[in-house]
Amino acid sequence: MTIHTITPAPQAPVVPGRGRLRPLGLGDVRITGGFWGDRQSVNGRHTLEHIGSRLESEGWLPNFDLAPTGGLVEGRRGREFSDSEVYKYLEALAWEIGRTDDPTLEQRFHDVVARVAAVQEEDGYLNTRFGRPGQPPRWSDLEWGHELYCLGHLFQSAVARERTRPGSDDGLLGIARAAADLVCAEFGADGRDAICGHAEVEVGLAELSRVTGDRRYLAQARLFVERHGRKTLRDIEWGRKYFQDDIAVRDAKVLRGHAVRANYLASGAVDVAVDVGDNELLKALRRQWDRTIARRTYITGGQGSHHQDEAFGDDWELPPDRAYSETCAGIGSIMFSWRLLLAGADPRHADLIERTLYNVVATSPAPDGRAFYYANTLHQRVPGIPADPDGTSPRASSSLRAPWFDVSCCPPNVARTLASLDAYIATADAGGVQLHQYAPASVRTSLDDGRIVAFDVDTAYPADGRITVTHMSDADAAWTLSLRVPAWAAGATLRIVTSDSVQQRSVDTGMVEIRHAFRSGDLVQLDLPMAPRVSSPDGRIDAVRGCVAVERGPEVLALESVDLGPAGVDDVGRVAIDLDTAPVERDGKVWVRVARLPLADGRWPYGEEPAGTDAESVEVPLVPYHEWAERGPSTMRVWIPEAP
Amino acid sequence: MTIHTITPAPQAPVVPGRGRLRPLGLGDVRITGGFWGDRQSVNGRHTLEHIGSRLESEGWLPNFDLAPTGGLVEGRRGREFSDSEVYKYLEALAWEIGRTDDPTLEQRFHDVVARVAAVQEEDGYLNTRFGRPGQPPRWSDLEWGHELYCLGHLFQSAVARERTRPGSDDGLLGIARAAADLVCAEFGADGRDAICGHAEVEVGLAELSRVTGDRRYLAQARLFVERHGRKTLRDIEWGRKYFQDDIAVRDAKVLRGHAVRANYLASGAVDVAVDVGDNELLKALRRQWDRTIARRTYITGGQGSHHQDEAFGDDWELPPDRAYSETCAGIGSIMFSWRLLLAGADPRHADLIERTLYNVVATSPAPDGRAFYYANTLHQRVPGIPADPDGTSPRASSSLRAPWFDVSCCPPNVARTLASLDAYIATADAGGVQLHQYAPASVRTSLDDGRIVAFDVDTAYPADGRITVTHMSDADAAWTLSLRVPAWAAGATLRIVTSDSVQQRSVDTGMVEIRHAFRSGDLVQLDLPMAPRVSSPDGRIDAVRGCVAVERGPEVLALESVDLGPAGVDDVGRVAIDLDTAPVERDGKVWVRVARLPLADGRWPYGEEPAGTDAESVEVPLVPYHEWAERGPSTMRVWIPEAP
Repeated sequence: MTIHTITPAPQAPVVPGRGRLRPLGLGDVRITGGFWGDRQSVNGRHTLEHIGSRLESEGWLPNFDLAPTGGLVEGRRGREFSDSEVYKYLEALAWEIGRTDDPTLEQRFHDVVARVAAVQEEDGYLNTRFGRPGQPPRWSDLEWGHELYCLGHLFQSAVARERTRPGSDDGLLGIARAAADLVCAEFGADGRDAICGHAEVEVGLAELSRVTGDRRYLAQARLFVERHGRKTLRDIEWGRKYFQDDIAVRDAKVLRGHAVRANYLASGAVDVAVDVGDNELLKALRRQWDRTIARRTYITGGQGSHHQDEAFGDDWELPPDRAYSETCAGIGSIMFSWRLLLAGADPRHADLIERTLYNVVATSPAPDGRAFYYANTLHQRVPGIPADPDGTSPRASSSLRAPWFDVSCCPPNVARTLASLDAYIATADAGGVQLHQYAPASVRTSLDDGRIVAFDVDTAYPADGRITVTHMSDADAAWTLSLRVPAWAAGATLRIVTSDSVQQRSVDTGMVEIRHAFRSGDLVQLDLPMAPRVSSPDGRIDAVRGCVAVERGPEVLALESVDLGPAGVDDVGRVAIDLDTAPVERDGKVWVRVARLPLADGRWPYGEEPAGTDAESVEVPLVPYHEWAERGPSTMRVWIPEAP
Repeated sequence: MTIHTITPAPQAPVVPGRGRLRPLGLGDVRITGGFWGDRQSVNGRHTLEHIGSRLESEGWLPNFDLAPTGGLVEGRRGREFSDSEVYKYLEALAWEIGRTDDPTLEQRFHDVVARVAAVQEEDGYLNTRFGRPGQPPRWSDLEWGHELYCLGHLFQSAVARERTRPGSDDGLLGIARAAADLVCAEFGADGRDAICGHAEVEVGLAELSRVTGDRRYLAQARLFVERHGRKTLRDIEWGRKYFQDDIAVRDAKVLRGHAVRANYLASGAVDVAVDVGDNELLKALRRQWDRTIARRTYITGGQGSHHQDEAFGDDWELPPDRAYSETCAGIGSIMFSWRLLLAGADPRHADLIERTLYNVVATSPAPDGRAFYYANTLHQRVPGIPADPDGTSPRASSSLRAPWFDVSCCPPNVARTLASLDAYIATADAGGVQLHQYAPASVRTSLDDGRIVAFDVDTAYPADGRITVTHMSDADAAWTLSLRVPAWAAGATLRIVTSDSVQQRSVDTGMVEIRHAFRSGDLVQLDLPMAPRVSSPDGRIDAVRGCVAVERGPEVLALESVDLGPAGVDDVGRVAIDLDTAPVERDGKVWVRVARLPLADGRWPYGEEPAGTDAESVEVPLVPYHEWAERGPSTMRVWIPEAP
């Protein structure tokens, strides 16, 4: 594990003090278009405005204006964690300003920070819901109050700002430091022996430590991580695992409980493990990741199969129709995987990030960037009901993308993720640069020895599987360009075109390394096989036994009722896939043959073996799962029963 | 539909003013032993004492002592509906006193009623949680306050008492009438246009009307039924269907929302439809029952597949591992089915009652009658954790039977059901007597024309399929004895032995009618085929695709890990059933062959088709589902994957 001393720090959300890989930030890597560039553009042009507008109309931002007037006790609106949405919005603004230098957003950022500043008390305390006369006392409801959770997001926003606009005069870093100092005083080794019911302050403190160099914050993050599992939070109906307060982080075998909390805590624990050099803890977290991926993760990368407590189920409990797969849990999983990737350079972590980006993060926002999925079902049995465009939807039972939720953590979480996505594309190490995710991009960075490398990535991925790296700088000594070949991409080929040779070869999945003194104009071309694949579930995932999913590249595909007309059925509940004919790609779509199941109605549904399908199967198209319900209400399924 | 005028009224929970069948109560039918007699005995000896003791120690009964001292505002304990548990306990006591004449229980009954009486206000209002200075005002929280729900249970307890001890001086009927009068004044046609968030007052008012002859109570029940679906309750995260306030009862197509609420409301609606002669409403309820049974009911008869809102899922959404199948929902379903059976004499309603009695109601209590299941999963993936015998368990996440719950509706609901079970065995009509459920019993009743009939039922059912009816009275004219042949009992045979003939024949499923002037000593013997049956699910029940369940008689069977030792596996998650060998019965157990699935661990679980089973299958026994977890913590499944 290499110790990084990088100046200036990369403009990235996670900058560990050590690790196998060093992140490249917005100053090094820019997404220049394509699948993710389009989404970043919608995010910057529409989603940020939409979120800002809703934060105002819901009162969550105006809450901050009420404190100086004394109106907060009577007039505060929103749930106990609504401050955090403002901070995630600030974080998203900070990244977007870093990407685009937009002066309107810059002004908005200053305005919002000023409003937040007005609420901070002299000793650094900052929350609109606790601590004033008439409000519950500070830290009086650690299970549900979310005070430290909110501060964690505040810290992340200040970190994003300081990394993208170091030394800005907006004052946010000072606000964050004052609050962090209070947290250290209140919850330090000699202070209150407690944790927050929702992990998040751990990642916030760890990054604040990295950005300020103040190790007290790291020590405090470590204390919070270590205090999990000591049962200091009250027991609740779903058990203390909901808060990850059932088992010490280093003793746990798998992620469990509330899926967002679990991933945020695991992320903070990696930060601590890496920065304090606790390899035992790091190993424990890797093992937890392994088992969580093997047994508790949907094919989309989504996590969480319980609606009631927004939680992981038991091993193998992955019902597609009751998938919770909260968008924020997907983002939390990316946070966890990214940290493990930086620490250990295992491409499986980047594989999961890709899967989760395409099939959870990309699924949430509508094409216009103004409506979102909070939960991401893999099987919709009843066509959804369009959400009120001016209203607030219930978070989990929303069956179509909705503009806002009573608990609206997901929209700003998507926004901050998309605005900082450039930082998840590539990393560097002593020997070269690693490309983990494929998007049109320009990379301009320096290696550890100070040599400049520059290359452009051109690709229509995932529409097409060809990724072309064109070198734009001349190296006088060899360095290593590493490309991730996803685990699904067996049969990938690599072509290297330099001034004096053309090589072509097949490459294994994992990381393929090309060591060369690249010259401007040299090309490295990776071809990933994009033919549709039929995937079967492990036999222990009972809920999808006898079904297959069809995938293409990094995208999971889905069958929607709107495409079932030719099959003579109006929902996806009575079709089976005919696998005698392989899925084919034609006209930019993947087609499969399905047959209608002849099923009797109105009788006791348990008895004789069901009959086979009708003789005739018909061809129907599938859509990428992330596009589902974009053509209006429909039924949908990812897992399609095999014809008997 | 016949109009009944029966004097004296049967000692039964449901005595409709009209219907195809007339209930026979505790005075007509006595269960004398066997499967249900044993459970009634445990219920009377242990469960009632256990419930009474817990109601005291939890404070739910002492709450009633606090009102006269003014201590209720500060000192009240329990959830908002805790009064109702006291009333269900009273109802259970009333039936048990009716069955056994136990003087200790009679004294206890008087004592509890006196404590309840002390809380009733001058105008009839009765609730420990609302209406006093310092408490929320009366009727101020109709969504969640449960005031009318509690009164519904009060009315049912008073009805049970008046039917079993008419004119008793305990005062309960007067308490109920005073409260009912207040409800009519407050919520009558000219009063508050509102409903309670939890249906129950409807059945209570309808029966109170029947027992008192006061039609105002029926009119009020009708108003409450008709007011559902008008969206007078506030919307909530899970929608107004949770309260059945989304669609008018007569317009609904299927039961939906909270499964206990849905069944209680449907039951009250049948009562109203029958007594006011609203055949359109009755037809609508029959259609709802039909679709609910065809699409939203587990093979156990259990209902409710959402933990979050304790609710029905969509059609075909029946995950075994997330079955909620609340014990109270099973009891509610029996209430609904029983009312439809009385109204229309369709044996399918008695079929479902039998299935639900054996596989939900019998599953809940432990053999000692002092611990219960609240939710009834059909697939336990992780061995349960024994409940604290002195503690209170979370209702739904309890994985082993627990002595008490924070929401403890199920134990007293089981108690009142078992104590009144004699009343669900048989009915009468103008032509004779119908036997719906099989248990050792004595039946002594009179036909509509006043003729006395008497017969005994002997059977070891369900251990054995032979049911023998021995006539104990001499009829001078023919009457009809009808026996239900369950839908699963294809191939049943009937043998009739009279003084002058012996007949034997096979009989179809449904009701078999034997018309004869039976003489004392005549025998009617029904033989139901008890060989184990392999049942497959409808192809639309995705969660159990590729699995079978094994049933025997009315019992659903289950595979428990404790029996899997010989198969070399310690949980039920990696076995498949080998159907090349049919299940066999031997030594009082049903045996099946299972093979171990060779599954890889620690990898991404979606990809190639899983391999087949190991070559060797081994024989393992199944247990009746209602006995599962009686040998300690284990994993369990009802639906067993078929070997590939």
